[in-house]
Amino acid sequence: MTETTLTPVSVIGLGAMGSALATALLKAGHSTTVWNRSAEKAEALSEQGASRAATVVEAVQASPLVIVCVLDHTIMHELLDPLGEGLAGRVLVNLTTGTPKQAREAGAWAATMKTTYLDGAIMATPPMIGQPEAFLLYSGSEQAYEAHEATLKRFGGASSYFGTDPGLASLYDIALLTSMYMSFAGFLYGAALVGTANVDATSFATFAEGVISGIVLGDMDETARQIDDGHYPDDASPLAMQAAGMQTFIKAFHDEGIDTTILEHLKGLTDRTVAAGHAEAGLASLIEQIRRHV
Amino acid sequence: MTETTLTPVSVIGLGAMGSALATALLKAGHSTTVWNRSAEKAEALSEQGASRAATVVEAVQASPLVIVCVLDHTIMHELLDPLGEGLAGRVLVNLTTGTPKQAREAGAWAATMKTTYLDGAIMATPPMIGQPEAFLLYSGSEQAYEAHEATLKRFGGASSYFGTDPGLASLYDIALLTSMYMSFAGFLYGAALVGTANVDATSFATFAEGVISGIVLGDMDETARQIDDGHYPDDASPLAMQAAGMQTFIKAFHDEGIDTTILEHLKGLTDRTVAAGHAEAGLASLIEQIRRHV
Ligand SMILES: NC(=O)c1ccc[n+]([C@@H]2O[C@H](COP(=O)([O-])OP(=O)(O)OC[C@H]3O[C@@H](n4cnc5c(N)ncnc54)[C@H](OP(=O)(O)O)[C@@H]3O)[C@@H](O)[C@H]2O)c1
Ligand SMILES: NC(=O)c1ccc[n+]([C@@H]2O[C@H](COP(=O)([O-])OP(=O)(O)OC[C@H]3O[C@@H](n4cnc5c(N)ncnc54)[C@H](OP(=O)(O)O)[C@@H]3O)[C@@H](O)[C@H]2O)c1
Repeated sequence: MTETTLTPVSVIGLGAMGSALATALLKAGHSTTVWNRSAEKAEALSEQGASRAATVVEAVQASPLVIVCVLDHTIMHELLDPLGEGLAGRVLVNLTTGTPKQAREAGAWAATMKTTYLDGAIMATPPMIGQPEAFLLYSGSEQAYEAHEATLKRFGGASSYFGTDPGLASLYDIALLTSMYMSFAGFLYGAALVGTANVDATSFATFAEGVISGIVLGDMDETARQIDDGHYPDDASPLAMQAAGMQTFIKAFHDEGIDTTILEHLKGLTDRTVAAGHAEAGLASLIEQIRRHV
Repeated sequence: MTETTLTPVSVIGLGAMGSALATALLKAGHSTTVWNRSAEKAEALSEQGASRAATVVEAVQASPLVIVCVLDHTIMHELLDPLGEGLAGRVLVNLTTGTPKQAREAGAWAATMKTTYLDGAIMATPPMIGQPEAFLLYSGSEQAYEAHEATLKRFGGASSYFGTDPGLASLYDIALLTSMYMSFAGFLYGAALVGTANVDATSFATFAEGVISGIVLGDMDETARQIDDGHYPDDASPLAMQAAGMQTFIKAFHDEGIDTTILEHLKGLTDRTVAAGHAEAGLASLIEQIRRHV
């Protein structure tokens, strides 16, 4: 592709993230139009070659591909709802963080505006934008993703398309970040516990890495298979035994003066799973109680 | 070492785990004496060459190295306290699960009996005992560990000694298992969330593996360094922003009908950390609130 065939792109919202997105487009040579509520944030981008739109309408008119990245969905709607027909025929890529429900509602709303909608979630910080390993998740119009994949990969080389349901990008993003947070918090709880005996976190990390990569990652495919089968065999560590073990853990955390609430929650989840008939099952059976509101 | 120099070992407690331990010793050629409350559990081991002791006293007298692996510390004390001087001069390796506090108390108790004490924790299931990758943790008498390391490695090749404080094996074990459980639960929460859109867990696992190994394991050494420094810099994702993100996650889990209690706990921990002055810090700063009882 020669430079003259690069799609012109408009970026609405120039916070830390929107500015990073616009910068990546400018660096790649896209004709880039920008708009932000506080106009001064467009200055640095203008110096790098961006065109400054005076209004949201002007920004939308300037390019077939419109990226919006503002604080939340409410603000996105405040900015774009007034445009009505003005959005018709555009491809709108919404990189504003929202829930899967909000993404689906935005998809339905865009359809009423005759706008092609792609929802996105960004699993990267602004300084990572433009790197080959940056991971952005997209879902919604497959045609739009295919047509603009090269442009969207300017933001992150590891980007991926998850399906036509616009909620999928957000759903995957939140699911992956939840896994990440809990895993991270697990390391912190462990480090806090050994820290009570003046063991440093660096020493603990050596062993924690082994356990996470050996056991958690080592068993993940089998765990996933069990979830997909709805059948959770475990010959060696029946859940009822693990629940008893967790009680010992809670006692240990309590003895050493560490917060036990998260372990009590895990124990509660395990007890409910045992009570629901999974005393002899493996740990993957917890998913059945996780699926229920309590 | 020739077979005749192998240390004779007694094993008290022949449940699933004690039987596996005794089997590993017999396979390695150790002269092995066994005792269990319900005598019939000694039969299979006797056929493999074990000597059956009629009483606990007899078992302890039979070998310089005594392994005890019963349900809990209370039972261990019920069995061994009556021996008094009978335990003097023995090396007692306690592989019964307990808290660090119980292990330290057992260490002090053993000293009054003139018994050398090693505490152990088993991060393996009975079928894994005897494998090179089985991981048993030991702490307490360093001399005893050094003298009997080869014998103790019959149970698991990946075994390790953690220090003279008898509580360390249990402390590390519980810390590592807590990291493992939370990481595992994080995967289940993520799988449950994407499952609401009929995404199978196997598809999710591909991405979750990338996030856990890339982000959690990738950042673990830096996280540990920050904990050890007591200083948690983060230029790109200040904690206050992450707390706001977690609120979106809770909404998403709630919208899709999934249990939110564990996320609410994480959010509460994050809010308390922000309130304590870490709004601009990184996620590792959560450890300061984890260290407090709530
Ligand atoms: N930063 C990250 O690490 C990161 C990572 C993943 C996803 N995200 C997502 O990216 C989106 C933007 O984040 P950011 O980091 O760029 O945040 P930010 O630096 O705080 O920028 C917020 C943006 O929203 C605009 N805005 C706020 N209230 C507005 C209103 N009432 N009317 C019009 N515009 C308004 C701001 O305009 P003004 O400049 O006029 O205030 C600014 O452009 C968020 O949804 C965030 O969750 C960020
Ligand atoms: N199994 C595992 O995956 C695993 C993993 C790590 C650690 N561990 C630890 O290993 C230890 C033993 O576990 P296990 O799996 O072998 O359990 P188990 O199969 O239930 O065996 C329990 C043992 O404790 C004995 N016991 C229970 N109550 C007693 C009493 N009042 N008086 C005398 N003996 C009594 C039993 O004797 P009887 O046969 O007479 O009932 C049996 O020898 C526990 O501390 C457990 O936490 C187990």
